[in-house]
Amino acid sequence: MFAFISHLICPRCDSRFDPRKVHNLCTACASPLLVEYDLEQVRASVDKETLARRGESMWRYRELLPVMDPAHIVSFGEGFTPLLPIDALTRTWGLETVWIKDDGLNPTGSFKARGASCGISKAKELGIREVALPTAGNAGGAWACYGAAAGLRVHVAMPRDAPAVNQLECRLYGADLTLVDGLISDAGKLIAQGVREHGWFDVSTLKEPYRIEGKKTLGLELAEQMNWQLPDAILYPAGGGVGIIGIWRGLQQLKAMGWVTGSLPRLIVVQAEGCAPLVKAFEEGRTESEFWPDARTFASGLRVPKALGDFLVLQAVRETGGTAIAVSDEQCGEMMKLLAGRTGIFAAPEGAATLAAAKILRERGDLASRDRVVLINTGSALKYPEAMSEALAMR
Amino acid sequence: MFAFISHLICPRCDSRFDPRKVHNLCTACASPLLVEYDLEQVRASVDKETLARRGESMWRYRELLPVMDPAHIVSFGEGFTPLLPIDALTRTWGLETVWIKDDGLNPTGSFKARGASCGISKAKELGIREVALPTAGNAGGAWACYGAAAGLRVHVAMPRDAPAVNQLECRLYGADLTLVDGLISDAGKLIAQGVREHGWFDVSTLKEPYRIEGKKTLGLELAEQMNWQLPDAILYPAGGGVGIIGIWRGLQQLKAMGWVTGSLPRLIVVQAEGCAPLVKAFEEGRTESEFWPDARTFASGLRVPKALGDFLVLQAVRETGGTAIAVSDEQCGEMMKLLAGRTGIFAAPEGAATLAAAKILRERGDLASRDRVVLINTGSALKYPEAMSEALAMR
Repeated sequence: MFAFISHLICPRCDSRFDPRKVHNLCTACASPLLVEYDLEQVRASVDKETLARRGESMWRYRELLPVMDPAHIVSFGEGFTPLLPIDALTRTWGLETVWIKDDGLNPTGSFKARGASCGISKAKELGIREVALPTAGNAGGAWACYGAAAGLRVHVAMPRDAPAVNQLECRLYGADLTLVDGLISDAGKLIAQGVREHGWFDVSTLKEPYRIEGKKTLGLELAEQMNWQLPDAILYPAGGGVGIIGIWRGLQQLKAMGWVTGSLPRLIVVQAEGCAPLVKAFEEGRTESEFWPDARTFASGLRVPKALGDFLVLQAVRETGGTAIAVSDEQCGEMMKLLAGRTGIFAAPEGAATLAAAKILRERGDLASRDRVVLINTGSALKYPEAMSEALAMR
Repeated sequence: MFAFISHLICPRCDSRFDPRKVHNLCTACASPLLVEYDLEQVRASVDKETLARRGESMWRYRELLPVMDPAHIVSFGEGFTPLLPIDALTRTWGLETVWIKDDGLNPTGSFKARGASCGISKAKELGIREVALPTAGNAGGAWACYGAAAGLRVHVAMPRDAPAVNQLECRLYGADLTLVDGLISDAGKLIAQGVREHGWFDVSTLKEPYRIEGKKTLGLELAEQMNWQLPDAILYPAGGGVGIIGIWRGLQQLKAMGWVTGSLPRLIVVQAEGCAPLVKAFEEGRTESEFWPDARTFASGLRVPKALGDFLVLQAVRETGGTAIAVSDEQCGEMMKLLAGRTGIFAAPEGAATLAAAKILRERGDLASRDRVVLINTGSALKYPEAMSEALAMR
C-alpha cells in the first residue's frame, strides 16, 4: 500500500479536502484541486538507488502518485519515455544542448496516456463506474483505452473536425462517443450536461485532481533521466496546460524532498498563432486568460480557447522566469519534417511547435547557446494523418 | 565491444561466411543467411541476474545481437514490450492462461521496429550508406525512421493500396518512396532492379542476415518475462514469417545456453483466408509454399503471396509440433473490437487474427484448456485506420 497522500488542496482559496472521498472542483471557489503528499514520509520510504532499479514506467514513482493499492493500477507501461539529444540539429541555430522528451512513444501514441492511467486507476480505486470528458482528440483515445482495460464506461465528446483516428480509436475501445460541431469548449458543455443528468464522474481537464498527477511524472522522469541535474528551460506545447502545471508541481516536490537543488527550469509555454490565449495573457500581464475566439490550428491539441488551469500555468511561467510564445502552423509543419527526416523523431504538430519556438527564442536571446533545453513532444505524428499531409504539401 | 558473432551460415547448404564482410543471400544456393554466435562465450559474459538490471529495450540482449560497437546502435527504446494477460477474455472459450505480447507498443507502432533497429545499426557498423526494401507497409515506416536517425538513405517500394499512414510516414521521414500497382512481390521486383542499377544494399525480408536478429528478441523477451518457463504454444501472424523464425532461433539459442530447458513451445502460424500460402503448404505436407494468386486481406501485413523464408517457417512449425491456420477478415475485425473494448489492447488486424485463431484451435482441440498460450500482436491498430473503419462497420 502507498498511502502518502495527505490531502487535497485548493490553490486559490486554500480549502482542504479528504482524499478518501470523491471530489471534482473546490466546493468553495470552483478552482481545480491539487494533491498534497507527506513528502517526509515519501523520503523515508524510497531513495534514488531504489528507484533506479524499478521498472521503466511512470509507476516507478508510486510513492508520489495517488493510487494506494497497486491492484488498482491500470498500466500498459506508459511513461519513462526516451529523452533524445538533438544537438546535431539545433547546433546550427546556436543551441548546443537540446533534448526531446518523446512522449509520442507512450501507449495510445500520446502523453495523454499518463493522465488516463493515473486518473482511471484512481477512479477504479474510488469505486467510480462511469467517467466523462470532452477532448480535442488524444485524451479521448487514452481515457477510452484505460477505461476499457479497467472495465469502466467512458463517455467522450469531441469536435467533429478532430483527427479521424481519434474518433475511430474511441469507437473501437467501445467508448460512448458524441461528435460536436465546435471546439473542445462546446464539447465540454455537452459533457457538463451529461454529468448533471446521469451522474457520470467528470474527468475533464483539471475537473478532478488525479489526471495531473499522471502528467507530473513527466517532470519526475526528466529529473531522474538528467541525473537529478535540472535543465535550464523546458518548452511545453500548452492546450489545457495540465502538463506544465504537472511538471512544475513534480519538480517542486522533488525540491522539497531535497532530491534536486537550485532554481527550477524556466517553464516556457508554446501555443499556435491561431489559438494563443495563454501567450496573450502572459504578454498583457494578466493572471488569467480570455476566451480565444475562432480558434484555428492543425495542431488539434492546441485548439483550447480557454483553459481552466490558465491561472496556474501563468503562475508557473512567471515564478520560474519563463515566457510564452506562439508559432504558425507552417513553422510546425516545417519542423515536423525536419525532425522526422534528420532525427527519426516522429513528432505531433504540438511537439514540433516547441522546436520552432526554440529556434525563435534563440534568435530573440530568450535562450542562450549554452542553455540546457528540453522540448516536450506530446504525441506521435501517427495520430495526425491530416497534419502529416499538410506538412508534406508545404513548400 | 560485443563480438560474440562467430559466423554467418546458410541453413540450406551449410556454407559459412565471414560476418565482418557485407552479405546478402548465400552465394552458393541463394538461401537466406543466419547469424551464429559463440554461445559459450556469451554464457561466460552475462547471466540472468545481470540481464535483469539492464534497461528495458531489446538491446539488453546485446551479447546475442550482431552489433559489435554500442556506438552504432540506433535505438528509440524498441522491444521489451508488455506481456499482458487476457485470461478474463479467453476463459469463456475454455482457454485459462493466455497472454498477448503487445508489440504494437513499439516505436513506429509495430514490431518492425525491432528488425529495423538491428538492421540499420548493423548497416551503419558495416559502413553502408543506402538501403532499399519492398514493404507491405509497416517495415517501410520502421526502416525510414531508423534510417533517418542513422543518416542513411532509405529507398522504399510499397503497394499503392497499403494503408495511407504507411505512405505518409515514409515521406515524412524523408525516404525515397515509390508506390507500386500490385503486391509486395511486385514492389520487390522494383527494388531488385534499383539494387542492381544503383548498388543500394538490399534489406528485403531475409535478403540480409540482421533484420531477423532484431525479431529474435521477441523470443528472448518472452522467455525472460515468463521467468524462463516457456509457454506451451505461441501464435504468430505470418506474412514474411521472419518473426516466427526469429523466435525459434532465439529460443534455440537460449536452450543451447542452458537458460531454458524442456521442449520448445509449439509454434503456430496464423494467416488470412485471402492469403494463406504457408497454411496450404503445411496442410499439403510441403516443405515450401507456392505463390498465392490474387492475395486479399485488410490485414495488410499478411498480404505476402510467397515468403523467401517459407521453408524455415514450415520447419519451425513442424519441428515444434505446431500447426497453421487461416482466419477470415470478419473474424479479425470482430477480435479487434473485442480486444480493444474488453482489455484496452489496440491490436492490428494481424494481431487480432491470432486471437481468432486461438478460439478456433481450442474448439478443434489443438489447444488444451490449461495450455499456456502467447499471442503475438505485431502492430497498433492506430496504423490501420481503414481496417478500424471496416471492423466498426461489421455487424
